[in-house]
Amino acid sequence: MAEHTVSFDIVSDRTTVQTGTLLTEAARLAGVEISQPCGGQGRCGRCMVQVQDGQIRRRSTLRLSTKDVELGFALACQAVVEGDVTVAVPPQEKVERRLSTDRTAAKVTVPTGYDYLSHQSIRRVNLTVSKPSMDDQSDDWSRLQTALRKKLEGDSPLDPEAGPFQMPPLRASLTLLRRLGRVLREGDWQVTAIVDIPSWQNGQTEARLIALLPGYTPDPSPLWGVAIDIGTTTVSLWLVDLISGEVKIQAAEYNGQIARGEDVISRIIYASKNSGDVEMRNLVLKTINQLLERAGSRAKIESKEIVKATVAGNSTMMHLLLGIPAESIRLMPFVTTVNSAPLTLAQEIGFAIHPEASVDCLPGVASYVGADISAGVLSSGMDDDEQVSLFIDIGTNGETVLGSSEWLVTCACSAGPAFEGAGVLHGMRATRGAIEEVWINSQSYEPNYRVIGETKPRGLCGSGLISLLAELFLNGVLDKAGNFNAFLPSERIRRGEHGFEYVIAWAAESQQGQDIVITHVDVDNLLRAKAAIYAGFKVLADSVGYPLEAVEQVLIGGAFGKYINVEKAVEIGLLPDMPWEKFHFLGNTAVLGAYRALLDRRARLRIGEIASRMTYIELSADNSFYDAFTSALFLPHTDLKLFPSVVQELEEIEKRQSVTTEKGR
Amino acid sequence: MAEHTVSFDIVSDRTTVQTGTLLTEAARLAGVEISQPCGGQGRCGRCMVQVQDGQIRRRSTLRLSTKDVELGFALACQAVVEGDVTVAVPPQEKVERRLSTDRTAAKVTVPTGYDYLSHQSIRRVNLTVSKPSMDDQSDDWSRLQTALRKKLEGDSPLDPEAGPFQMPPLRASLTLLRRLGRVLREGDWQVTAIVDIPSWQNGQTEARLIALLPGYTPDPSPLWGVAIDIGTTTVSLWLVDLISGEVKIQAAEYNGQIARGEDVISRIIYASKNSGDVEMRNLVLKTINQLLERAGSRAKIESKEIVKATVAGNSTMMHLLLGIPAESIRLMPFVTTVNSAPLTLAQEIGFAIHPEASVDCLPGVASYVGADISAGVLSSGMDDDEQVSLFIDIGTNGETVLGSSEWLVTCACSAGPAFEGAGVLHGMRATRGAIEEVWINSQSYEPNYRVIGETKPRGLCGSGLISLLAELFLNGVLDKAGNFNAFLPSERIRRGEHGFEYVIAWAAESQQGQDIVITHVDVDNLLRAKAAIYAGFKVLADSVGYPLEAVEQVLIGGAFGKYINVEKAVEIGLLPDMPWEKFHFLGNTAVLGAYRALLDRRARLRIGEIASRMTYIELSADNSFYDAFTSALFLPHTDLKLFPSVVQELEEIEKRQSVTTEKGR
Repeated sequence: MAEHTVSFDIVSDRTTVQTGTLLTEAARLAGVEISQPCGGQGRCGRCMVQVQDGQIRRRSTLRLSTKDVELGFALACQAVVEGDVTVAVPPQEKVERRLSTDRTAAKVTVPTGYDYLSHQSIRRVNLTVSKPSMDDQSDDWSRLQTALRKKLEGDSPLDPEAGPFQMPPLRASLTLLRRLGRVLREGDWQVTAIVDIPSWQNGQTEARLIALLPGYTPDPSPLWGVAIDIGTTTVSLWLVDLISGEVKIQAAEYNGQIARGEDVISRIIYASKNSGDVEMRNLVLKTINQLLERAGSRAKIESKEIVKATVAGNSTMMHLLLGIPAESIRLMPFVTTVNSAPLTLAQEIGFAIHPEASVDCLPGVASYVGADISAGVLSSGMDDDEQVSLFIDIGTNGETVLGSSEWLVTCACSAGPAFEGAGVLHGMRATRGAIEEVWINSQSYEPNYRVIGETKPRGLCGSGLISLLAELFLNGVLDKAGNFNAFLPSERIRRGEHGFEYVIAWAAESQQGQDIVITHVDVDNLLRAKAAIYAGFKVLADSVGYPLEAVEQVLIGGAFGKYINVEKAVEIGLLPDMPWEKFHFLGNTAVLGAYRALLDRRARLRIGEIASRMTYIELSADNSFYDAFTSALFLPHTDLKLFPSVVQELEEIEKRQSVTTEKGR
Repeated sequence: MAEHTVSFDIVSDRTTVQTGTLLTEAARLAGVEISQPCGGQGRCGRCMVQVQDGQIRRRSTLRLSTKDVELGFALACQAVVEGDVTVAVPPQEKVERRLSTDRTAAKVTVPTGYDYLSHQSIRRVNLTVSKPSMDDQSDDWSRLQTALRKKLEGDSPLDPEAGPFQMPPLRASLTLLRRLGRVLREGDWQVTAIVDIPSWQNGQTEARLIALLPGYTPDPSPLWGVAIDIGTTTVSLWLVDLISGEVKIQAAEYNGQIARGEDVISRIIYASKNSGDVEMRNLVLKTINQLLERAGSRAKIESKEIVKATVAGNSTMMHLLLGIPAESIRLMPFVTTVNSAPLTLAQEIGFAIHPEASVDCLPGVASYVGADISAGVLSSGMDDDEQVSLFIDIGTNGETVLGSSEWLVTCACSAGPAFEGAGVLHGMRATRGAIEEVWINSQSYEPNYRVIGETKPRGLCGSGLISLLAELFLNGVLDKAGNFNAFLPSERIRRGEHGFEYVIAWAAESQQGQDIVITHVDVDNLLRAKAAIYAGFKVLADSVGYPLEAVEQVLIGGAFGKYINVEKAVEIGLLPDMPWEKFHFLGNTAVLGAYRALLDRRARLRIGEIASRMTYIELSADNSFYDAFTSALFLPHTDLKLFPSVVQELEEIEKRQSVTTEKGR
């Protein structure tokens, strides 16, 4: 057999191996440590290396995109040496980052072509107001308007075919009018005006004076806005310079309402009692105002300098923020009071920004498909794409949108909070101490896991649960109905208080000194949750007669989506079985949509159009949902034709296990 | 000489007199009392009788209109018997009323053709909102809007050529949205909505929800609005049913700010010190809210039921009401902060009506030509009349408008408060105890006066001062320069502390037990005031090259105008010399204009047009004003050709005096 040399970039010596040797074996020989949490099964992707020169054969490219392959990336555990090769071993962090590159969409870029003068509804202008005299005694207010009109009509952003821009009637609060005369004189007739013109279309709208300051504002100075997403769990806030369009600060914090209930239903119930609504409102306002202060101090500005806000959030969060009773959201027939709230002012809503700043609560579609989803769809771009996309915001409600530039249908699956760790014995949120990824050895049934914060584990978060469920199933610990195989030779599979269970971590390894397990009841709850989500996809697709498998891309939004392992999610039948490349992780699409709407009035209009274009399908009123749900209550599904890659993987594992068994005889 | 019988309707016997006998003499013979305050000079009109049958000759028809003559009215002191006659002697009150018929325009009638559905911006509708169900889960807010749209687009008041009415986007406050769900359910999906659509033109405006109440409102029920005029002295308020258009209650009260200054200048000064602005605002709000309560309790409604208000007032009053500093009104170059304030809500401005009611502060023109004048012009109709009219609001500022449907010019004459009693030793406001009319006997120089409230006199109000000045001049007590004739044989003309003076009432007749006099200084002040007003007319007319004497009608508005005696005002040269018929007293034109604007959105638009159409002429910057003013500092004027009727009257009196003198020899 031919011999080849293998050079790893991180050691100086070359290693000689025979044709057909795996790179992992070569590395071991060379003394190079390569991570293999899945035990060299080619499934976790952690052993990724880059072949810089020479010939290898890839047994599997499961974790690799076409582009990865082009660039020479390979999984060391699946790469067979077929010539002299030079291999770069990236640091493990880099591999992790690469694996999740697509999903950390958080490095936000200013939308291409953003032009403050053309797209922003808020305009700050330096004005020289003509001085009154005995020959020109018009009032201060007209004088200001004349100066403003000249300025705005001068550098109008209107489409040329619409003709020259004519400034609409200007409004101002009494508070501003009361200061008007003094500000004009204090600035010696030079002032800075900040105006809001929601639609720069002739005859379509009105202009509102937000602020008037004595003197000119030097150029360039930022003009501040905030985009906010009020999640049930987390509130995210981006502080944005409306002129450059840049996101200057990103801040996030748990929603202060969490202490009064983990999910929207318990919040609604709490709010409907006594003065719970006032308390809920104050709690979320406190969170937002703390974030504003934090962002402000990081940017070295007063939060009062912020003159515009856009807000996304699910319908319950929006109602609680606005102080509108949310009770009807919870009760049949599940309607909101308002999906598209009128524009409000910061002082009305209670935001600690400029009191006259406009606060635009973005429009939602229904009780369980809120503004976070319309904003999410906008930022995903699916509404403007000829391809058919499936947009998913995985979380308690499992909001899903299917469609294209031609049509959009949406539903919410009421998955329940299982994937957020609730209703699962050792479930927890994705914080320090949560197991976020699990691999199980198909021979020994021993687990290998990764913990957030690299500490001892306390429990399992959503991605950990999905990962665990997939591993238990693929390795035969769970059968397709979700029942434990009690006959496997492992002490980790045992009968516990809640029926059969599997021990992920022994007491000694855990933070709290007790075994971390997943029980039969937990599995049942997770199955129901994933079945509800998948059934939602199915019903949506069926409702428009579009085959789910024909979907051209799957867009995953939401904070939870950021951490999800698609492959695992497909293996348990949570996500449809599609090639790796079709999945895209978009990060917090809601705050991204709010950011787009903050910058560009056309984007804002588009969110409104999206909200009204989406056909909402109420699953609890849909007869086909129950069938789709029960069919999906299996691992991965009753209809295995829908999950060909999982079938193939099961076959491979079985083959491997039978070989081992044979060997072991 | 032929004898004739004279029958008076109030006595049974006939009286026989010779041809040529005056009816006053016949009355004396018949024992019929006829009032002759002017001493039978044919000037006061109080001896008016109606000749029902027979022949008389009228020596003078000074006090009679053409129509009066047609109806047989005659002044008894000027009516010569030339045949058998039957005479009706009307009760004195009736004569008084007849003399001032034209001026008590206060019996308001609903504008001809007023149609609530076509003209009112506020609409109250009973709505049946569709119930939500699992098949129709749209939000409450859309549901309400759909019901409202159907209703409003169904009975649209639009011009047919404008196409069917399309309801504009609906806005509502957070307060209303917070109650929305509960109100809909409480009324079992039957509700009463009150909306404000300022302009019922497609694509021109927006609609605002003012109130939403559970259940239907039975028809007919009134829908309440108020028209308010904030005068420097008096606040007037009309409570109006917007559906029928009827004025249900009229109420008026002294402006509570009076205690802090009689005129606008002293109010501005007071407001500019410490927290004087807040105090001023609260004082006028207190007056308004007391009036609202009084009107409400008289109409048996809660003032919170009032859903719309329009407000007229001079620019200073408007600034003080809105809490906008008024300082610049007082200082060169005399500009306001705002002539046309944006629409506000009752809760913002502090009116004790429905908190979401719209409060429309009508637009003014300049610092000293305010919304009271634009509203006044509207209610006078001069802006829509081909005739050229002179509109006068006599008071401190003497606002004047000259024009027609083609053009309008305006000015304010800074007459000062002399005619309101200030700057005159025994001047006072027109309240109980004020002498409001004076007649002086041309032989004895003894006065005859009428006191408001038929009590002992305390002083003289504006109309009393005008009357007195005219009598003093006509009877030669004052010369044309306003100097006292010290040589007349009357103890009433004497040298006092302030130079020469005339005693109207001796101490014994007066309330305070001291002589009531008019001094040389008083006369000077009054001359200045009247000269300023007349000079204003002159400058206005000259500015457009229109001869003042060609003016087709003189429209007199304002509370003061209500009591003024035109003839006397002409005699002193305050008003231009024109036939009696050309003068029309319109009453409180400001509140009348506010009432029109309250009812009819076209009238409201017209006020805006009037305000912008009026060319304001600043007299203090006008070179010709000083000349016109000095020329007018005489009684009646240096140019006697401008006052032909006064010349004629002087000649008649002189003739009479010389006859008497000859007789007396």
